[in-house]
Formats: sequence, C-alpha cells, structure tokens
Amino acid sequence: MSKTIAINAGSSSLKWQLYEMPAETVIAKGLIERIGLPESVSSVSFDGDKHVTVKDIHNHTEAVAILMNDLKSLAIIDHFSEITGTGHRVVAGGELFKSSVLITDEIAKQIENLAELAPLHNPANAAGIHAFRALLPNATHVAVFDTAFHTTMPPVAYRYPVPNDYYDKYAVRKYGAHGTSHMYVSQKAAEYLGKAPEELKLITAHIGNGVSLTAIDGGKSVDTSMGFTPLAGVMMGTRTGDLDASIIPYIMVKTGITDVNELIDIFNKKSGLAGISGSSSDMRDILKGREEGDEKATLAFDLFINRIQKYIGQYLAVLNGADAVVFTAGIGENSGPVRKAIVDGLSWFGLDIDESKNIVGADGIISTAAAKVKVLVIPTDEELVIARDVEKLSQ
Amino acid sequence: MSKTIAINAGSSSLKWQLYEMPAETVIAKGLIERIGLPESVSSVSFDGDKHVTVKDIHNHTEAVAILMNDLKSLAIIDHFSEITGTGHRVVAGGELFKSSVLITDEIAKQIENLAELAPLHNPANAAGIHAFRALLPNATHVAVFDTAFHTTMPPVAYRYPVPNDYYDKYAVRKYGAHGTSHMYVSQKAAEYLGKAPEELKLITAHIGNGVSLTAIDGGKSVDTSMGFTPLAGVMMGTRTGDLDASIIPYIMVKTGITDVNELIDIFNKKSGLAGISGSSSDMRDILKGREEGDEKATLAFDLFINRIQKYIGQYLAVLNGADAVVFTAGIGENSGPVRKAIVDGLSWFGLDIDESKNIVGADGIISTAAAKVKVLVIPTDEELVIARDVEKLSQ
Repeated sequence: MSKTIAINAGSSSLKWQLYEMPAETVIAKGLIERIGLPESVSSVSFDGDKHVTVKDIHNHTEAVAILMNDLKSLAIIDHFSEITGTGHRVVAGGELFKSSVLITDEIAKQIENLAELAPLHNPANAAGIHAFRALLPNATHVAVFDTAFHTTMPPVAYRYPVPNDYYDKYAVRKYGAHGTSHMYVSQKAAEYLGKAPEELKLITAHIGNGVSLTAIDGGKSVDTSMGFTPLAGVMMGTRTGDLDASIIPYIMVKTGITDVNELIDIFNKKSGLAGISGSSSDMRDILKGREEGDEKATLAFDLFINRIQKYIGQYLAVLNGADAVVFTAGIGENSGPVRKAIVDGLSWFGLDIDESKNIVGADGIISTAAAKVKVLVIPTDEELVIARDVEKLSQ
Repeated sequence: MSKTIAINAGSSSLKWQLYEMPAETVIAKGLIERIGLPESVSSVSFDGDKHVTVKDIHNHTEAVAILMNDLKSLAIIDHFSEITGTGHRVVAGGELFKSSVLITDEIAKQIENLAELAPLHNPANAAGIHAFRALLPNATHVAVFDTAFHTTMPPVAYRYPVPNDYYDKYAVRKYGAHGTSHMYVSQKAAEYLGKAPEELKLITAHIGNGVSLTAIDGGKSVDTSMGFTPLAGVMMGTRTGDLDASIIPYIMVKTGITDVNELIDIFNKKSGLAGISGSSSDMRDILKGREEGDEKATLAFDLFINRIQKYIGQYLAVLNGADAVVFTAGIGENSGPVRKAIVDGLSWFGLDIDESKNIVGADGIISTAAAKVKVLVIPTDEELVIARDVEKLSQ
C-alpha cells in the first residue's frame, strides 16, 4: 500500500486529492485558492470534516509546503515519505507528450518550455512539480497531459487552413483539452455498453464551466472542439467558442480597445453564458432565469444548447455515425434539463432520452431501449486517472 | 418587352448580364476587370463573339459609361432608353433590408452607410447604382441584397456569444452571404423534388472560390456558415473559415505583424486551399496535385472536404434532419470528385450518390433511389434572380 497525491494546479489555485493505492481509496482532498492574492484560502476535506485556513500564500511553492504541513498537522500522514507518488495535471503537452511520463529534470524543463502554448497554466504546473520534487526527493513524480489523449488526431482535424508556415515554424494547430476526462468517460462508457473501446464510435461531451466535445473512433480521439487554446469550439460559461475572426478589428475600432490581447481576454472571461445573459456564467442561474421568463437568460440557454447540438452533428459527420453520446462534467453530469434540450433536438439521428433515467445522480445509459444512438451520463474522475498513471509508471 | 441589366460590382470589377424580359433571354453579358488599375479589361459576349478592349478605367462610374457605350457601339442597343430596368447585387443589407427594394435617394444613402459591414463591396455597389441612375434617369433601379435571404435566421443562429453590447451598440452578428444563390437553388431543388419549398428541409452548399452552406427550413434560411463577414464558416479557396481567435495574438508575436488587419487580410486572401497547398487556391490545381501524389495538395483537399462534411452534419442537427443536400456554384456544380468525397463520408446519414449521375453538366437529383437524404446539383443563377426582382418591382 502506498499514498499517491493527484495535483491540478491552476494559475492561482491548487486542487489535490490523496489516494491509498492501488486500492484507489480517497483519503483526503483539498483546494488552495487565491494563491498570490491577499487572504488565500486552503481547505482540506478529511474524515467527514472540512478544515479551512485563511492566510497569504504567495506562490505555488508555498502552497505545496502548506498543503504538506496540513497533511501532517491533521494527522493524515505521519511523515512526508509516506507519499510515494505525485501526479500532476499538465495543461499543454504540445506535440511532444503522447502519454503520461516520469518527470526528470529534462521533462520538467520541457514542460516549462511549453508555457508558450498555455501561458497561465504550464508555469503553475511546473511550479507544483518543482515544489513536490524538492519536498519528496524519493517519490515517483508523473506528468499527465491534458492534450495527450488528443495526439491521435489526424492532420485533417488538427491543422488549420492558414499558411503552412504557421504550423511548420510556430506549431499553430489544434491541441484540444480535457483529454484525461474524455479518455476516462469513453472507457467507462464502453464498459456500460458491454463492448471494447476499439469497437465503438463515441462522442463525449465534457460540459462544465469549460466545455469540449470529442469524436472518439475505436478508443482514439479523432477530433475535439477546443483548439490551439481552450477558447475554441462551443460556447461556454465565459468563453465564445469558434468565431468569425473579422469581428476582432471591427470591435477594436468600435470600442477603442487597442491591444488585441485585451479583446481575447474578454472573449475568454466575459463572453459565453455570461456575455449573453449579462448576469451569470453559472448554468444554475441561467436555468433559474429562464424559468422566471428572463429573455437574456433564455437566449443564453438556447445558444448554449444550439452550439453543443451543432458539434454533435458535426462529429456524427466526422465519425460517419456513432454508437453513443456521453455527457460528463459539472453541467453534463448534473443538469437533466440541459441533456434533455440537447437530445430532444436530435431525434432524427436516433437519439432519445428515457426521462425516468434522466435524473440527478444518473450514472450509465439514460436513452430509451429503442434509441439508435445511446445516451450516457458518466461522472468524470480526472484525479483517479492521474493516480492510476502514477501507479502504472511506478512499477 | 423590355431590357433589364443585372449588375454585380466588386471592389475592382463589374460583372453584368443584359436580359430581354419577361422572356428571361440573355442578350449579352460581360465583365470589366482591374478597375482602378492600369490596363483595365472590358469583355462583352454577344451573338457568339467575345469583344475585349484594354484601357485604363479609373472607377466604377467610368466603367458603367464604357459598358453602356459598348452596348451601343456593338449595336446591342440603339438608345440607352431601351434599358428600362437595372438590378444591383448589394453585398451588405444589414438588418435593414429583408428583400429587394426600389432604389430611391434614401435607399442609396442607406446602402452607402452599410459600407462599414462590407468595406470593399458596398462602396462599389453604391458607385454602380449612382452611375446607372445618372445615365438612365427614367429606368427602374432595384437593389438585391446578398444578405436578405438570411434575415429570417433566428437569434440563436445569428447572435454570437460575446458581450451583449457588441450586438446592441455595434450590430455584431451573423449576416451571411450568397443569399440570392441559396434562395434560387433551394427553390429550384423543390421543383426537382416535386414539393413546395414550405414542405422541405434543405442544406444548400454554395461551393465556389467563396464557400457557404445554409440550413433552409420550409423555404427560409435558419442558419448559414458565413458570419459577420464572409471569412467565417468552412475553409475556402483563400479563406480560413471559423478559427480559434487566440491564434491571432500568438501569430502576431511570432511573425512580428503589428496590425491585426494585416493578419485578417492573410486569413482572407492567403489561407484556405492556397495556404495549405502552398501553391493554388483553385480546386482544379488541387485535384491535379492530389492525383500526382502532392502531399500538400492532398491535405488541402482533405481539409476542404472535412470542413464541408462537418457543416452538413451541423445543419442536419440544426434542422433535425433534412430532405436533401444541394450543391451549387463553380466547384459544387462542376466537380464530381468533390461531391463524391463529401457524400461518401456521410453514408450513415443516408446520403448516397449515383455515380452514373455524378457527371459534368449534372442538373437535378444525383443520389440513388434508396438515398434517405437526396443529393442534387443545381447550377446557380444569381443574375436571373436580380432580373426577376427588377421585373417584379417594375409593376
């Protein structure tokens, strides 16, 4: 038995989950927020209790030290050395990393160098890695890339129709994201469908605050909706998804924005559900507004559903038919009304939801027996994939 | 009997076709190119001959005068007054023009004011209108808008998930293009299918140097692939189609381009087939290169087909099924291999081409009898729609 910690470091946050492996038991989990801001918050959930502390945490190195000391002071571990493995979600693996890898000095350097493709995330991922390697010199450290699952995409999916130089010289292409989640739920869906992943064509819909859809053929990602960055694809909580690029110079002139980065920032943080509703990026608020007859919330909801439906149609074309559509992540797992609205508009394809199964806590097939294309809900578990990859690479 | 001229003015060109109406007989047609450049070229096709003259033509006003004098000197007309109607294709009608209109001083002014939405085209359209109104003060002058057919799109199709202000204050939305073509071929397709347009769900694919697809429900456009400008949607001869907007600042830094307009210009003029093949924007060259084993031409072809297939899948989702897919315009009408490649990958939807009908000169249904979704080829005729609208509004 050994303890493994799965780490998901964001630009100002660090999410973690401690496992007993290979039993895959979650011992404790927590979240550190507002790293680098005043009054950072660290919360630890353990043994049915939640322990919250508020103090200034200046960077990810400090965050890791605090987390490790919390584990000791809460008697979750006695010694640091009990943790024999750490697994790190890394957002951008570029074309370099096609699967999870043991972290060496060289790998750590390469992850830092890929920061250009994920300027907010990879530096945080690298900082987390450095801190754990320093504190736990004898543990196995593994990097799990959000893009790895999508490295099987063919050029027809990942290339953009821009001048070749932009790909050849600057690596401009589709990388996708949420790969760990798409992989996990597609494998789990195959179990529910009683087939090997190799025999199936699946469309996985990771619908959280970030949203991406993936076309999976025989267990391999062949196309995904996020692009060079997570801005692309469908509309999300605060992101636009795909756009007519011509609106950029037009909006800049109209609004007086002179730095294109400022507008891209608005497209990432103030658009999507938030932009259309004018009030919230949270689907629960949008659903409430819609029920109360709020026109903007209704339009935001309708656009959100429409964009996801379009991508399902698109991936049915890419796969030339599919066995199932799989919903996961915050909204995909928990919002029956969203699933119903999406599927009801796609009846021609043979998608059909069994309303008695389209409930809170759904896990498995929720389509009718007659549905030509099955519909499933699968709670995602990226942390578990990370812990498993650490276990695998420790041997 | 009366003569009507249909005018399609581009930024540096003026295409025209002279009809005997209501017989709809084409008497003569021509094209003036390189307007505003040295050695402009005017060609007139009449009575089986093609008359070409080369001289400097400085602007659209001069071009119209030369065209009218050519008509007289070639004895196509005796007097200007024989032309009782002129019809003008106008690229951008904004939200203002939902159908063709008689041109008054006020309408002419409004067309000029919409130049912001089509900076290269509307000023040329307006110049053509002014010149004809001055030369033919007693004729009926009609504006036919490329966007009018798409004004039936619902907000869920035309709104972008950006902050509301961009729509409310600056009219940022999807307007689409090729409307006259999509309308014409959809009506013609309904005739071939033996049904009223109101009874049909159609996907029309206008595939020329510019490419757009439209979802048509009951005779009305409900979604189209071009957006705020023609840059959006599928990959084209030289245009990118939809993009991850985040690549813009990244490419600007990498290439040292400081003006975003310069990059948008590259996305419009040096991307698409031309960008990927590195050699040509012309599908005939791409097909030839592909046959000869040129890898870049093959990738360009594959991307082009893939993007059109994705939009067909997308519009099957929007319409929740369709009766037929209709191909038109330069490539759509003339390239059997392009049609075959698109349809072969969509067999799951019930699309199926009859190879014996997928030939040069095809006009009508080219799918097999068993096909669930019919496939048609319909040669488009935007000029005829313009002449008919002039006739209609003259009464």
